Amino acid sequence: MEFFQYIPLTEAKELIDSKLDGVYAAPETVPLLDSLGRITAEDIAALTDMPPFDRSTVDGYAVRSDDTYGASEASPALFALAGEVAMGQPATAEIVSGQAMGITTGGMLPPGADAVVMFEHTEMLDANNLLVKDRIAPGENVVAQGEDLQADCAILAMGQKISPQDIGVLAACGCTHITVRKRLEVGIISTGDELVEVGQPVALGQIRDVNSFVLSAMLTELGCSVKRLGIVEDSYDRFYTTLREAVDTCQLVIISGGSSVGARDYTVKAIGALGQPGVLIHGVAVKPGRPTIFGMVDTTPVFGLPGHPMAAMTICEQLVKPAARKMMGQTPPDIISVPAILTRNVASSPGRDDFVNVRLSRQDGRYAATPILGKSGLIRVAAQADGMIHILTNQSGLYEGDPVDVLFIKNPR
Amino acid sequence: MEFFQYIPLTEAKELIDSKLDGVYAAPETVPLLDSLGRITAEDIAALTDMPPFDRSTVDGYAVRSDDTYGASEASPALFALAGEVAMGQPATAEIVSGQAMGITTGGMLPPGADAVVMFEHTEMLDANNLLVKDRIAPGENVVAQGEDLQADCAILAMGQKISPQDIGVLAACGCTHITVRKRLEVGIISTGDELVEVGQPVALGQIRDVNSFVLSAMLTELGCSVKRLGIVEDSYDRFYTTLREAVDTCQLVIISGGSSVGARDYTVKAIGALGQPGVLIHGVAVKPGRPTIFGMVDTTPVFGLPGHPMAAMTICEQLVKPAARKMMGQTPPDIISVPAILTRNVASSPGRDDFVNVRLSRQDGRYAATPILGKSGLIRVAAQADGMIHILTNQSGLYEGDPVDVLFIKNPR
Repeated sequence: MEFFQYIPLTEAKELIDSKLDGVYAAPETVPLLDSLGRITAEDIAALTDMPPFDRSTVDGYAVRSDDTYGASEASPALFALAGEVAMGQPATAEIVSGQAMGITTGGMLPPGADAVVMFEHTEMLDANNLLVKDRIAPGENVVAQGEDLQADCAILAMGQKISPQDIGVLAACGCTHITVRKRLEVGIISTGDELVEVGQPVALGQIRDVNSFVLSAMLTELGCSVKRLGIVEDSYDRFYTTLREAVDTCQLVIISGGSSVGARDYTVKAIGALGQPGVLIHGVAVKPGRPTIFGMVDTTPVFGLPGHPMAAMTICEQLVKPAARKMMGQTPPDIISVPAILTRNVASSPGRDDFVNVRLSRQDGRYAATPILGKSGLIRVAAQADGMIHILTNQSGLYEGDPVDVLFIKNPR
Repeated sequence: MEFFQYIPLTEAKELIDSKLDGVYAAPETVPLLDSLGRITAEDIAALTDMPPFDRSTVDGYAVRSDDTYGASEASPALFALAGEVAMGQPATAEIVSGQAMGITTGGMLPPGADAVVMFEHTEMLDANNLLVKDRIAPGENVVAQGEDLQADCAILAMGQKISPQDIGVLAACGCTHITVRKRLEVGIISTGDELVEVGQPVALGQIRDVNSFVLSAMLTELGCSVKRLGIVEDSYDRFYTTLREAVDTCQLVIISGGSSVGARDYTVKAIGALGQPGVLIHGVAVKPGRPTIFGMVDTTPVFGLPGHPMAAMTICEQLVKPAARKMMGQTPPDIISVPAILTRNVASSPGRDDFVNVRLSRQDGRYAATPILGKSGLIRVAAQADGMIHILTNQSGLYEGDPVDVLFIKNPR
């Protein structure tokens, strides 16, 4: 029987991070709308000023703001109408003092004008003359050239996940195609004589291969391209062959369910046999997820994840996803948790990190985090959870009423 | 010149909601992994117990827990070895008092046994006998049949967005195909003589069509199938024809950028001409986003969104996305905001709802929300924001240090 050398979670994170220097996913260029959710592969700068000219933000009249000095409902200022700015056309005729030119939202401010009076604050005196009933400041109701984005200013840094709002900025800058990271190629091998494919009949003693589906979905959501490589029975030769093929064709390999002693032995032996440096982590002081294996076959990281669904998900969230993000060149997201108040005591053993699933609810304008009790083998617990709380290795538990940080495990929207 | 009848935001939400009764998106059946992020179209119940048999959660020995009574390191209990449970096979041989049977994680508990002792708490005395050095409780290290999911229990309710964790539950239940809602067909028409396609050269006075890209990305992210129907110049006939086609071929139509008086007039006129009841909302007391139009052409909702990018995004978030969710049968998400402390005073006018973009940062274990200042026409403000705060119609502003709820506008992870 083989025992684990459990290393602390923080050490495991640092070790894995240190082995994955350099970005693995090559750049590729995709049409703007296809870049949603992808990772930028370069810094992107604005090519031109945005807006490219002084632009009205309202429907109204372009004027010189000085001319509205003292204007009010009781004592309106008189302006001579000097035509209209045509939408989508350059405004060329200059406004002089005492003149107003009709303009609609988005229209180009004519030379000489420095502000726009809203329609609501004007009244036509006759066909050629306008009363302005409000005083406006220079620049009012105008977005100046370059006020939104200046040419050459950075609009998106390398390593950012592109949001709908970023798509807007990129569109504004005329970017029709974006250079993003290719999806990281992830392979998942399931091990275990007891596993059957989800669609197959289950005999007594057998169980469906749940974990490869969960892990596949988690990494797909992250932006990886995931291949499920099927279930390998506990035969070393077949396992070795499948792992070799996975390492040859994928950039990151996960062995799912291989946490029984037999499967663990195979995993360690095969990783070592396939390349250097081989197995680097063999047990992590974390619950759930202790029997975690990590190794490198040359430049390919291989994770051996525990068989309990909750443990597999926890280690995927804590170790595999950060590795995949790094390999795709993604800057780690900074909003990953929500502050909450714990509704119940939670025990923990010092000397290991603990992760506890919680449900969030609103309570007096704050979030309340209620631990979901249940054994680590239960898949239901994971599906009910909104997030996890992390009890650090030096904490012996948390108490009802303690402030906690709830790590999102699901997209909260 | 036409004036708006501004209705309060809450009234607008209720009115839109009341016009969209019944789910529009038809059900379709997709393979399990393709259901990630989709909306369930029916309640899904477990078909069988999960696990389907009592199952070990550790590597060790199946025993009768009574037999370990009083066992300790100093005074171990003696057991006769009765073979091993083969993984993936039914355990048929019964354990009697004083017997232990080897079992690995995931193995089926043999009849007669009610708990599993971990390897770590045992020692082989000789080839046939085992010492157990710990007392265990009934059910320890075992997940009982049906403990995770019982046959017929609800695992996913209709209207849920399927998460990776849900994929796990569905896999556990043997669901290879899932009935989800089809993606809602959304059409976006851009209006405005000043607009040019993102890839086209921009002449002075012209501007790129940003909003249709942002709106498209926002609704794609939500799970809609979005068609950009191009830019229609301010000609009523062309606009009418395009809108008629959109209403005929899409389930929800957005008119983007049509907030100048001319475009607004076209929008109102065309919606009214195409079907009943026509325009229902013509201005909402919200900033940004006042010149919002909503109407129904028979059963097709049509939104006329403001031209300012920030206003268009705010109204999309507040009115269009809830409508699209309802039409796709999605239960509204319950975690949509994060509590934070405001870092700066924010003024607001009573009589309207205000939305202010903020950036989040961590400060003393809480989030600090810092308003991003900038005119409503700026696209950069949106891209920099993590979320929005909502200042209600009866509030005249918020102060530095006030607790606020920050609504996510981006996936925070």
